[in-house]
Amino acid sequence: MPVITFEPSGKTLEVAPGTELLEAMSKAGIDIDLSCGGEGTCGDCIVQVKSGDVDCQSQGMLSGSALSDGHVLACRTRVLDKPVVIEIPQQSGKEGGQFVDETDSVLLIRQELFPREWQHDPLTLKWLVQVPAPQQEDGLSDLERLTRTVQKDWGRLDFHYSLPVIQKLADVLRTQDGLVTITLVRSLQLYYIVDVEPGNQTTRHYGIAIDVGTTTVAVQLVSLPLARVIATRTAYNDQVVCGLDVISRINYAQKPDRLKELSVRVLRTINTLVHEVCRAYGVEPEEISNAVVAGNTTMIHLLLGLKPEYIRLEPYTPTLLEARYFTSQEIGLEINPNSWVYISPAVGSYVGGDITSGLLCTDIAADSDAVNLFIDIGTNGELVVGNNEFLLTCACSAGPAFEGGGIEFGMRASLGAIEKVQVDPETGVASFQTIGNVLPRGICGSGMIALLAGLSTTGWIDAAGKLDRDRPSPAIEIQGRQASYIIAAKQQSAIGKPIAISETDIENILRAKAAIFSAVAMMLEQTGLNVADLHQVYIAGGFGRFLDIEKAICIGLLPDVPREKYLYIGNSSLTGAFMVLVSQEFREKQLQLAKRMTYIDLSVKPGYMNQYVGALFLPHTNMELFPTVKRSRL
Amino acid sequence: MPVITFEPSGKTLEVAPGTELLEAMSKAGIDIDLSCGGEGTCGDCIVQVKSGDVDCQSQGMLSGSALSDGHVLACRTRVLDKPVVIEIPQQSGKEGGQFVDETDSVLLIRQELFPREWQHDPLTLKWLVQVPAPQQEDGLSDLERLTRTVQKDWGRLDFHYSLPVIQKLADVLRTQDGLVTITLVRSLQLYYIVDVEPGNQTTRHYGIAIDVGTTTVAVQLVSLPLARVIATRTAYNDQVVCGLDVISRINYAQKPDRLKELSVRVLRTINTLVHEVCRAYGVEPEEISNAVVAGNTTMIHLLLGLKPEYIRLEPYTPTLLEARYFTSQEIGLEINPNSWVYISPAVGSYVGGDITSGLLCTDIAADSDAVNLFIDIGTNGELVVGNNEFLLTCACSAGPAFEGGGIEFGMRASLGAIEKVQVDPETGVASFQTIGNVLPRGICGSGMIALLAGLSTTGWIDAAGKLDRDRPSPAIEIQGRQASYIIAAKQQSAIGKPIAISETDIENILRAKAAIFSAVAMMLEQTGLNVADLHQVYIAGGFGRFLDIEKAICIGLLPDVPREKYLYIGNSSLTGAFMVLVSQEFREKQLQLAKRMTYIDLSVKPGYMNQYVGALFLPHTNMELFPTVKRSRL
Repeated sequence: MPVITFEPSGKTLEVAPGTELLEAMSKAGIDIDLSCGGEGTCGDCIVQVKSGDVDCQSQGMLSGSALSDGHVLACRTRVLDKPVVIEIPQQSGKEGGQFVDETDSVLLIRQELFPREWQHDPLTLKWLVQVPAPQQEDGLSDLERLTRTVQKDWGRLDFHYSLPVIQKLADVLRTQDGLVTITLVRSLQLYYIVDVEPGNQTTRHYGIAIDVGTTTVAVQLVSLPLARVIATRTAYNDQVVCGLDVISRINYAQKPDRLKELSVRVLRTINTLVHEVCRAYGVEPEEISNAVVAGNTTMIHLLLGLKPEYIRLEPYTPTLLEARYFTSQEIGLEINPNSWVYISPAVGSYVGGDITSGLLCTDIAADSDAVNLFIDIGTNGELVVGNNEFLLTCACSAGPAFEGGGIEFGMRASLGAIEKVQVDPETGVASFQTIGNVLPRGICGSGMIALLAGLSTTGWIDAAGKLDRDRPSPAIEIQGRQASYIIAAKQQSAIGKPIAISETDIENILRAKAAIFSAVAMMLEQTGLNVADLHQVYIAGGFGRFLDIEKAICIGLLPDVPREKYLYIGNSSLTGAFMVLVSQEFREKQLQLAKRMTYIDLSVKPGYMNQYVGALFLPHTNMELFPTVKRSRL
Repeated sequence: MPVITFEPSGKTLEVAPGTELLEAMSKAGIDIDLSCGGEGTCGDCIVQVKSGDVDCQSQGMLSGSALSDGHVLACRTRVLDKPVVIEIPQQSGKEGGQFVDETDSVLLIRQELFPREWQHDPLTLKWLVQVPAPQQEDGLSDLERLTRTVQKDWGRLDFHYSLPVIQKLADVLRTQDGLVTITLVRSLQLYYIVDVEPGNQTTRHYGIAIDVGTTTVAVQLVSLPLARVIATRTAYNDQVVCGLDVISRINYAQKPDRLKELSVRVLRTINTLVHEVCRAYGVEPEEISNAVVAGNTTMIHLLLGLKPEYIRLEPYTPTLLEARYFTSQEIGLEINPNSWVYISPAVGSYVGGDITSGLLCTDIAADSDAVNLFIDIGTNGELVVGNNEFLLTCACSAGPAFEGGGIEFGMRASLGAIEKVQVDPETGVASFQTIGNVLPRGICGSGMIALLAGLSTTGWIDAAGKLDRDRPSPAIEIQGRQASYIIAAKQQSAIGKPIAISETDIENILRAKAAIFSAVAMMLEQTGLNVADLHQVYIAGGFGRFLDIEKAICIGLLPDVPREKYLYIGNSSLTGAFMVLVSQEFREKQLQLAKRMTYIDLSVKPGYMNQYVGALFLPHTNMELFPTVKRSRL
């Protein structure tokens, strides 16, 4: 019988081969609070195999690097007939031991905003039909027999079949004596047959929600009959090497072959994620028959191979703002080639379909007269303020810092990212937590905010973002005119070197937060609103599961309003795309929102530059704007 | 000044360099009756340059082999500053000197059957619009500005744009200050934008009619705004090497990669013809924005990559009978990739869209109560009999003999084909005429019919198709049990060897004519009609410009009814495709015809085999069926 040794406690236990690791841990008295109940989705039971072999089914649920480090889900791992040593994460239990699959971010949205069951109405449907056998007497072709059968259920409409569907029709109709599942897109004008499969395939029906960010791309595999998210995957946009923000991408795309290159790059990113999530959950990409894409206007132009140049040139006119009828084949998306790909409606060149998508996750879409503010913090920051009477929107360029871009040890909110930091007031040394509670690989946006807040409140950094050179601290390293702050020493790090943040990194973070804050301030000024007038402030962004609002206010990223007004809703662009995927009512709602929004160009407004420069400080040059921060420092 | 010598007369003439050859011929007293008036389209002025160089613009109007033989159109050729020798065809004037471009075959149709001017209504239209300049204030994308402009003319419809059209939109709208030509498909449900071009391109708008035969493929370039045929090109179907008739092609297609191969082959044939005809007339293939394809059901299945197997297996159910929405891109047709390709409606597995297309060229489509018979002589023979009350149709397998297939020196009705033959009763030696009046390269269907009629009436062949072995003739060559008839001796031939027809060839021709005749006889028997009840008998087929009805009756191919009932209408499948291309009313008419037709399976009818065997003779075992032939032999 194999013996399991649990580290760091050193406990051992003899179990039968084939015993589930989670069960063995329970027997050894190591209790883990599982939010998914052992279904392999929450990541709460992540452990590390230090030596020995196990039968691990965690593939696809953990990143490749986590797997190669020996991380497994205990609920998906069985012991073989060999001794094995298992490392239990240092901070065990709910708070420390969890693994954040981005699936969780969907849980951040208030469930009551989601489409209700009676609103579940995906654009594509699977429909089971029994097609009569061919008969010489009626003279009907295969296609006519199928069409007539479908018309019995759907009325005497015209149906559009693409050639590849017709090419397999003869065999499909004869495989199970005419029992076939059709995949149908109901358009106003015409019904499109996306696929025809033999037998009953109605439960195997999937959609994909795609958020194309300038820095980060996220996809969400969705069960259309259940209207439920199956899993989410994110990755850096492969275009990042061609420029960090939309303007540099537009410049890069000047030559036609480079436009093609950018299109190929983002498609590669998306398709890789689609294949990954499909493989992990046993879904064939061809079973995905509808896609909803949300992204800023430039990202959509680059994805579709549309010249982005005019987005940047006066009068800033994009080629398209929305699209309904493209097929995945013409775009190059590797799902069912006849799938329709819906491009979320944009408002203009600088407020894209990611924002109209994100609004679906807020009360702004709920037709209320309370004035709400929506802030999407990405490489571009976008704001929407309004209610059922008016909707104003603006954009600013924040840069990729909060997504890890342009920061030496920056990374996305994924396994191994430092997401919480505290700074010792006396020694200046940091203590931190990582996502998945493993050794740190870098720092993500929420970690950066926590770090700057900690350094600022403890006085280890000044209002201009300069580290304290006068008080000696083992965490501060001074090299000439530059200083760096070491968050994790070499021996604490998973990457074989210390994880630090330089003053240059800090400047990038300050520029990002200043862009967001000054946009908020200008927007309120433009509308004549006071922060007190706001009912709710929604914060969206790729911070993963956590964004500490208190600390975000402390560094001057967000305005100093009562904390209960804030609601962090994660990647709302992706969640909104999911909502549109499962509900045509929400699709309609989104189109209405896009039409109602009025764009304000902040850059031409007087006072913008002053606001921005003031916001480059921690928290701001004008401390009156941050009364609670001011009070806490007294 | 260059000197021109005209052969065979030997006349010479001195002219200024640059003089048009036709003008020089006129000055030299060589008059040619030009049916096109010197427009380079009728081929009446074809001559051969025996020596010297000329400036020749005949490319594309003559076949490659004719050009390499030095054939030119005199009206398209200018003399250079050098002496030149020109051969005038032996039989000058209208009858002898003409060159038959298949364009002419369209002239065989009675003009009153063509769509009238008020019926000119092609499916695709080019439309000139002035799109307003982009403005930041209105927030409209390029696509929205275009759509709104088009909607001003066409109403608030929904428009479908394919991605490649949108990809070039930004530049197209900015090239000529918003003046653009859109190419539009008006569908019942939705309008499709096939193309967007800068500036006014409304006159450059083309369609292509395509007839896909088992043996021969023909394409016709059509000016859509003028509703006029520009030119026609034909070639053998590249699938011929995979089997001579539809059944052998279906067998060949059993393996999936071979189905693909057949599809690629016929596409190659069509695309080559399209490129040829475009090059000749200065049209870009991308300027062709609509295609109509007529073909038998098997050919359509192979073209579209549809498994043809079930056409041949009971209950003989094809995958599709018609198609409206395919794009040229999904089919692989090399014209504008967003063009719609209309597949002419078929009646069933054995009566295809070539027949419903051909019917448009007859009074059967003209809603009359006179009973007419339509016979399409191709590799498959198809018949339609009926009037405005009933329409019956049947098919038979004739084989490719009349198109030159399976006959050693057989060829299509193109330049150099022997099309008229007379046999000297005394010597048995043939005199003949070729298309274009050049040295013969082979014999086409009308030549075979004339030859067999001549041999039969002069007694050089018996009723069973055997050559006379008892009377010596220089034209008859006996080798063992086989005899051959030499039509053109080696020195009379363009291919360096005698052109002959063997008894095996004759058997093939007899089988072809027997299949057609017995189908006609059975069809009349089934309907209880007498030949006298027929108002008109339309003969369609790829015989080129001529089919000698008298001789076709003489060999027993066609029933012995008063000659004035017959009307030879050439390639009516192609002409009908042209009619559908330029008139939506005719498209509707064709769909109605297809629905009204009832298919009769002759092969299961008693007496069919007897009819067929009787018809294998010259003209038939039952001479009572051929009273005028019988009388002429008495």
